[in-house]
Amino acid sequence: MSDVKEILGNYSTDITKTIEEELSAITPDNLAEASVYLTRAGGKMLRPALTLITAEAVGGSHKSALRPAAAIELIHTFSLIHDDIMDQDDMRRGMPSVHKVWGDDVAILAGDTLFSKAFEIIIGNVGTSPEQNNKALATVADACVKICEGQALDMGFEERFDVAEEEYMEMIFKKTGALIAAATKAGAIMGGASDEVIDAMYDYGRLIGLAFQIQDDYLDLASDEETLGKPIGSDIGKGKMTVIAIKGLASDDSGRLLEILKDDENSPEDIGEAIGILTDCGAIEYARNLALESVNQAKELLEILDDSSFKHTLVKIADFVLERSA
Amino acid sequence: MSDVKEILGNYSTDITKTIEEELSAITPDNLAEASVYLTRAGGKMLRPALTLITAEAVGGSHKSALRPAAAIELIHTFSLIHDDIMDQDDMRRGMPSVHKVWGDDVAILAGDTLFSKAFEIIIGNVGTSPEQNNKALATVADACVKICEGQALDMGFEERFDVAEEEYMEMIFKKTGALIAAATKAGAIMGGASDEVIDAMYDYGRLIGLAFQIQDDYLDLASDEETLGKPIGSDIGKGKMTVIAIKGLASDDSGRLLEILKDDENSPEDIGEAIGILTDCGAIEYARNLALESVNQAKELLEILDDSSFKHTLVKIADFVLERSA
Repeated sequence: MSDVKEILGNYSTDITKTIEEELSAITPDNLAEASVYLTRAGGKMLRPALTLITAEAVGGSHKSALRPAAAIELIHTFSLIHDDIMDQDDMRRGMPSVHKVWGDDVAILAGDTLFSKAFEIIIGNVGTSPEQNNKALATVADACVKICEGQALDMGFEERFDVAEEEYMEMIFKKTGALIAAATKAGAIMGGASDEVIDAMYDYGRLIGLAFQIQDDYLDLASDEETLGKPIGSDIGKGKMTVIAIKGLASDDSGRLLEILKDDENSPEDIGEAIGILTDCGAIEYARNLALESVNQAKELLEILDDSSFKHTLVKIADFVLERSA
Repeated sequence: MSDVKEILGNYSTDITKTIEEELSAITPDNLAEASVYLTRAGGKMLRPALTLITAEAVGGSHKSALRPAAAIELIHTFSLIHDDIMDQDDMRRGMPSVHKVWGDDVAILAGDTLFSKAFEIIIGNVGTSPEQNNKALATVADACVKICEGQALDMGFEERFDVAEEEYMEMIFKKTGALIAAATKAGAIMGGASDEVIDAMYDYGRLIGLAFQIQDDYLDLASDEETLGKPIGSDIGKGKMTVIAIKGLASDDSGRLLEILKDDENSPEDIGEAIGILTDCGAIEYARNLALESVNQAKELLEILDDSSFKHTLVKIADFVLERSA
């Protein structure tokens, strides 16, 4: 696992440098600073690294996928900035979020600027054909529509306790999976892969994206407070719908669970009781298996690739999604 | 003038229909409704009509430019939705603005969705080559970055009374001119024009965009309340920087003018006094001449086009910018 973190870290230097270059011409200063702020705060850079590794795994060059990879990270950053405004999240990457530092107005604009820049970067990519740039851009634009739809679906789940599992899976695919899928697909496109490989890489990204989100839901209940950096069961406390809660609400003990989910002022004992219900009815194990199955399917899809160190890295990243504990 | 309104009206049917089609697949319902709302509220459709007329004026087809034209209108709508949040404007096109109906969160998302859709539409355009689609998209993405920069510059002008004319001109070019320029340029690209014609059409759009904004500033002082639909001199009341205020602040009577601009509670007499100062020092005439000069330059650029009814329409639209009284 630390292996994967090291690999991502190695890719992040190039990506950060490219982003800084691409954003250097923005004016006025406050917009420029707000736009580059979260990149400087340091992220995992999982998505852009996936674009680069996929491009290399299909036989393409690091160089021709570098700017599109940076663009994918800008799209991710744009969505974080706007989400933090909507969710009124005041912290991001251990620092005050963009809207806390510059206010909502500049944060909206900074997001919009990153969004525009991302498209500008992909379409102007050098070393790939207009057809490749077109296709990569269409992939990213499609993911952007899905991100918005996913966020709107997620907001619509608030105060709802009758969310079906398929609805939830659609939401996390759109909100989280679609951009990861676009990242690996764009890498395959820029690397010059065949349509069959491009499609397989999209599905690989989609599946590890789903596993990533389900693992988040799982860790909220199965990790410990020190490792996670926040209290265990906070999703239950907030009455948040997750695949685990949805499964639990379909179990025999759903009455008491629903009470706890609806309650705004649960005691630690209530949260513990809910975790007990979710454990006993098999909802936690169900989610864990769902994530595991997604990762296994993702790894099977990689069999279409020729053997290379990059292919092995993609296998490791799929495993990493479930091995992480925070 | 009513002639131009009629022409724009004729184009708007096709554009509105195309937008409705392009947005029909958005889910969930509240996001779909918020996204299509301002289009249904009815706008002038100046920008998309310019794209279509320019495509036709350079010898291209209406059909191959229709979806890109709709995309330009979506970009305009996206910027209106986000601007209304930032400026806390509660009305738009005679109806409550998007954030008033659905709240800031859905309004942010609706803007983002339109933005994504616009890029998706341009890149997927049929009947034009990948190179044309690429070039049109790069043009629009560049305009989007400029729109954000222009809005940030404009916000930075608040509480500032030392804005230089060049700064102001840069701001209105970015905020208003850049998208109109992108609209005419995209039309020329989709219509298959030469690079020389494409550049000329960009400048035509840029110049009428500048004239449009300066005319707005002019009408605020030179129209009458009934025609304008709001009190005369409201820009002065708000202490807003315009090319007229900037010119006035460089005149001999700048002391009293500055006092009035800084005052939050001006009487109608104060506003009248400021208009008197701006008239006497020639600032209003200066702005009017600046707009007139831009329109004349724009019309000269059209000489590069072969004669056609579309070319004549572009001449009429340039004149329309200054003839409008509200």
